[in-house]
Amino acid sequence: MADTQTIIPVILSGGSGTRLWPMSTPDRPKQFLPLTGERTMFQLTALRTHVADRFDAPIIVANARHAELIEAQLGEIGVSPAAIILEPCARNTAPAIALAALEAGSAPLLVMPSDHIITNEAAFMAAVAAALPLVEQGWLVTFGITPTGPETGYGYIRKGDALAGEPCKVERFIEKPSRSAAEAMLADGNHLWNGGIFLFRADIYLGALSIHAPDMLAAAKAALAQAKRNGARIFPNNEAFAASPADSIDYAVMEKAERVAVVPVSMGWSDVGSWDALHEIGHKDEHGNLSTENARLDNTSGMMVKSDGIRISASGVDNLIIIASGNEVLILPRGSSQDVKKFAG
Amino acid sequence: MADTQTIIPVILSGGSGTRLWPMSTPDRPKQFLPLTGERTMFQLTALRTHVADRFDAPIIVANARHAELIEAQLGEIGVSPAAIILEPCARNTAPAIALAALEAGSAPLLVMPSDHIITNEAAFMAAVAAALPLVEQGWLVTFGITPTGPETGYGYIRKGDALAGEPCKVERFIEKPSRSAAEAMLADGNHLWNGGIFLFRADIYLGALSIHAPDMLAAAKAALAQAKRNGARIFPNNEAFAASPADSIDYAVMEKAERVAVVPVSMGWSDVGSWDALHEIGHKDEHGNLSTENARLDNTSGMMVKSDGIRISASGVDNLIIIASGNEVLILPRGSSQDVKKFAG
Repeated sequence: MADTQTIIPVILSGGSGTRLWPMSTPDRPKQFLPLTGERTMFQLTALRTHVADRFDAPIIVANARHAELIEAQLGEIGVSPAAIILEPCARNTAPAIALAALEAGSAPLLVMPSDHIITNEAAFMAAVAAALPLVEQGWLVTFGITPTGPETGYGYIRKGDALAGEPCKVERFIEKPSRSAAEAMLADGNHLWNGGIFLFRADIYLGALSIHAPDMLAAAKAALAQAKRNGARIFPNNEAFAASPADSIDYAVMEKAERVAVVPVSMGWSDVGSWDALHEIGHKDEHGNLSTENARLDNTSGMMVKSDGIRISASGVDNLIIIASGNEVLILPRGSSQDVKKFAG
Repeated sequence: MADTQTIIPVILSGGSGTRLWPMSTPDRPKQFLPLTGERTMFQLTALRTHVADRFDAPIIVANARHAELIEAQLGEIGVSPAAIILEPCARNTAPAIALAALEAGSAPLLVMPSDHIITNEAAFMAAVAAALPLVEQGWLVTFGITPTGPETGYGYIRKGDALAGEPCKVERFIEKPSRSAAEAMLADGNHLWNGGIFLFRADIYLGALSIHAPDMLAAAKAALAQAKRNGARIFPNNEAFAASPADSIDYAVMEKAERVAVVPVSMGWSDVGSWDALHEIGHKDEHGNLSTENARLDNTSGMMVKSDGIRISASGVDNLIIIASGNEVLILPRGSSQDVKKFAG
């Protein structure tokens, strides 16, 4: 780690809240739910960098409708944000990060989605430390998750030439692949999952934006110039921000910039993108059942049962996803959790 | 039918409300639920004999906690009861019918459970007409349902010598049989299901009670002598009624009395004793799904889905029972609806 300059965590709170319906909803997407324990994934993300000598207070970039939820959840864990930038509309990750970078000066930014799980935090911190020398030299660094299976739901990164130590140049970014392509990438050992976690200096990111997406940078600057501020809350101007092109950081910057590196890391990462994923990472009983207190399971196995109120009583069934929230109950076979999209929203 | 004497329907509203949990509960057992259409089974039972020239106003015998429910449900269908006898405690069917018989004088009583379905009412009325001459001669008549399968959940009646026309003497009553015994009875054609429906003169029943269960008759008389009355409501004395032996009419009277006949009838009868039974008799779509409005089924077959509020969304599952009521959801494989007892009550 650098002795002189601390890192500013930038926590992105996006997501439409449909894949974990009925628990996640637009009013309460999955990062604000305590899906894996007592803390929500947003809280776990904020706590991950709540280390005074290495990190500054975080900048949160979020949907304006979640302002109170964010303040309440940060309050519960005793984290004071440097800023909560409340987007008046969604323009994908590149403009969101631009808003944070413009507030941050030239500090290194650790950009993190708020809805992922990392079980090995020491491995994550080691990867950040490994990336920092490159970042100080002006590289844009992404973290590539060592794949554990031929997942078709993630983007991949192909490693290029090695830099000093673990980091490599990025050869290219690959979109969600077919099954066979995923299997080939897993087999060749040269590919990593794109976890959407980045480390770079704010000024370097803004410089790359000025070259590769100048309209986006201009829109972010204008939105902040006309922003309303209230305590930590920053409300960028709606009309100015709406004028920004909508694009991801991968497309707008990382694929186009010159000095882009990837640091491989194996850290128990999951994007918790489905009820199946949550079953996979969660604590199961000896019959492979994962369930909450208000469920009564008798003669069942392989169940993923979760409820925030309704009492679920099931007997003689196996390998079902049963999720109850509010006045809704979802029932799917395990392995089919993508079918939630038939009902959500 | 007799020209001179009309029949008094006696509707028995017993049942603990556990087999159709979570919809049926002790506060609202299954006869008070609209399980097969707009009307509840209690209402359908009352409407079955709501024929002015053949039947008098009914006598209801029920649990005291259901008094208001009964009056409301009778009010909805425009039936005025002769009496609502509200049992202070449950003593099984023989004492319940004794209370009704003591209120009725010497009229023929048609005793009916309130929680059965009869889809062919004309066949039922024809069976009643066939029984009436015997009843006027002092016979105790039961109606035997022509079996449609080797059911192990019902009692059976073995037919004896034929009387005039369809009716036969009862040779004996048989308790819920084993599967093999049920198959043998179905094969020999001499057995009928015991549907718990009876026709006899009130005075003949009371006479049989005085011989075979004198303590029961004495308790019923004492309970009514000290009863409180309020409009149609009759509240038998608790202490006096509690002193009665608890026994079914089958054991206490029908198995012991001399002149006991059975009239065979095939009338689309079901005791709706389980969610499986309800699926069997209900209207299903082309995929064999029976469901209520607030259920969303996608790529399912053979489902029995019912909810009184919670919205159920299911995809890719087959042959499940999913029942939601209030804050409870029950999930079982079809064919296992007896497992509801693991959770109910």
